[in-house]
Amino acid sequence: MQIGKASIQFEEPPVIESMASIVGKKEGEGPLGSLFDVVEMDDMFGADTWEKAESALQKQTADLVLEKGGIRKKEVRYLFAGDLLGQLIATSFGTVDLEIPLFGLYGACSTMGEAMSLGAMTVAAGYGDRVMAMASSHFATAEKQFRFPLGYGNQRPFSATWTVTGCGSVVISKGKRGIAAIKGITTGRMVDMGSRDSMNMGAAMAPAAFHTIEQNFEDFGVDETYYDKIITGDLGEIGKTILLDFMKNKKRVLDLVHMDCGMEIYNKNTQDTHAGGSGCGCSASVLCAYVLPRIQEGIWKRVLFVPTGALLSTVSYNEGNTIPGIAHGVVLEHIG
Amino acid sequence: MQIGKASIQFEEPPVIESMASIVGKKEGEGPLGSLFDVVEMDDMFGADTWEKAESALQKQTADLVLEKGGIRKKEVRYLFAGDLLGQLIATSFGTVDLEIPLFGLYGACSTMGEAMSLGAMTVAAGYGDRVMAMASSHFATAEKQFRFPLGYGNQRPFSATWTVTGCGSVVISKGKRGIAAIKGITTGRMVDMGSRDSMNMGAAMAPAAFHTIEQNFEDFGVDETYYDKIITGDLGEIGKTILLDFMKNKKRVLDLVHMDCGMEIYNKNTQDTHAGGSGCGCSASVLCAYVLPRIQEGIWKRVLFVPTGALLSTVSYNEGNTIPGIAHGVVLEHIG
Repeated sequence: MQIGKASIQFEEPPVIESMASIVGKKEGEGPLGSLFDVVEMDDMFGADTWEKAESALQKQTADLVLEKGGIRKKEVRYLFAGDLLGQLIATSFGTVDLEIPLFGLYGACSTMGEAMSLGAMTVAAGYGDRVMAMASSHFATAEKQFRFPLGYGNQRPFSATWTVTGCGSVVISKGKRGIAAIKGITTGRMVDMGSRDSMNMGAAMAPAAFHTIEQNFEDFGVDETYYDKIITGDLGEIGKTILLDFMKNKKRVLDLVHMDCGMEIYNKNTQDTHAGGSGCGCSASVLCAYVLPRIQEGIWKRVLFVPTGALLSTVSYNEGNTIPGIAHGVVLEHIG
Repeated sequence: MQIGKASIQFEEPPVIESMASIVGKKEGEGPLGSLFDVVEMDDMFGADTWEKAESALQKQTADLVLEKGGIRKKEVRYLFAGDLLGQLIATSFGTVDLEIPLFGLYGACSTMGEAMSLGAMTVAAGYGDRVMAMASSHFATAEKQFRFPLGYGNQRPFSATWTVTGCGSVVISKGKRGIAAIKGITTGRMVDMGSRDSMNMGAAMAPAAFHTIEQNFEDFGVDETYYDKIITGDLGEIGKTILLDFMKNKKRVLDLVHMDCGMEIYNKNTQDTHAGGSGCGCSASVLCAYVLPRIQEGIWKRVLFVPTGALLSTVSYNEGNTIPGIAHGVVLEHIG
């Protein structure tokens, strides 16, 4: 059922039936290292180019989410997936063997929220009993695409984030039993506050996160006290500060309830990752390794998951254009 | 209702309430020139970069589809849109002022099919009374991205297509009156037959078109005689020949019922466009200028519209990778 301006509340909430996460070596060395299903020590994932490595990462994660759920690929009606690369090559090549009808998505680092939203809409409407949602990123493919060539003697500013090598995938199904229920969604719109610093993506995304969270509160008639956690994707330290400042102006205190996946995945003191992790694999893998298990156990009963994306392209950036942001909200609930 | 392996048949088919198409000068000089709503003589669309030009093209087309339908932007619940560029910059910057919740899509030149499929699913499920679907391409942004730098003395082979500067947009709504009904959809999957020639995109896409059309026949329990037209996106001359050959092997004669948007938009004898037009703006603009009006008038009662996409990226291509294809089918019917 459509509610408010930009949200849907599902009368029969679809459930997450299976979840899987695979990450690279550096992510395995971070604070959440032991929670991921697989930590792959070879960042090439056995392939001979970085792009093929990211495709292999998607393929392995998709295979794993099926295996963990005891699901055959033929039982998955649709696949909603994306990555950060031009023309979605990690997804194209990574999912060809699945032979599942595919909706290719691009929402920058918000892609997992977009994929779960469309997946839940599809299942709740009865268009399929079971769909897969997936998003990945890889440090080397992303850095090569967005920040190559680097200037000689270049230093990463403290506002920069570190692209996560990782992939998260969930299978969303009809039914009452599962890891968590998808109670509703709030779909974000492009928000452009004129940010122009490609080394400060948090600042570009924070206004979009703010907008989607506020819209969610308005559409569902709730406030920050309704959720046990409000979890953004990869705002990092600076983006988080901006978000909390915006919220303070609205007389909202999000400090205790807010968590950012990008700030959880690395140890900033020992891993030299500056403002935190980023990339669509960041929120996707942290969701599947850390967030969903806590909802399943009932430690958190109600979570607003808000992956955040910065619409950065080297072409538009080099032409002096701004970096708009987008964020998609997914309401996840404990199944009692 | 889900039917067969990859299709949905809508019990209450959503309708296309409004349509708009804007193209560039060359497309205006082609055989369909007089049918487009606007032929813009300035290929820069008043902007100072090609990318901003394509964004302006999307913005103008979105404004026009609303104006033609007498619809305010606030009455559109969701926007499903995409383009060919890395990180969807034409869409990001072109739609920011619409302030409509956005699902960013990437399906190469099949994007209009993907957008209309998700849009129709959304309306039919009651998630919104009205959504917009849109796709664009621009000759200069696409050529710059996919084929720059060109070799010295380079000649375009006859298998090459010409990227259309154009945008098509439809508003899909609940209700019984409108331009055409969306009876159902058949969602394509990645099909990789090992094609490696970036100057022959038709060959890369024809297997995907074949797969989706066959799947549509199987899922809906129909054959080629059911449709008045089966319209592919931008296979061009070579892709069309391959598709018809594949069909002949299945003892199907599609010759009379098949039409390809890429082969209709230019005059190959006078416009030097070789195998035909391509780009997601090709099928999107031909749909809105030529196909939908014929369905509205009842000249064609039942049409299978199948935009076709080649998952080409310069990165994967230069790494020696193949070019997989995808095609999304939309069943359009005359409202009697």
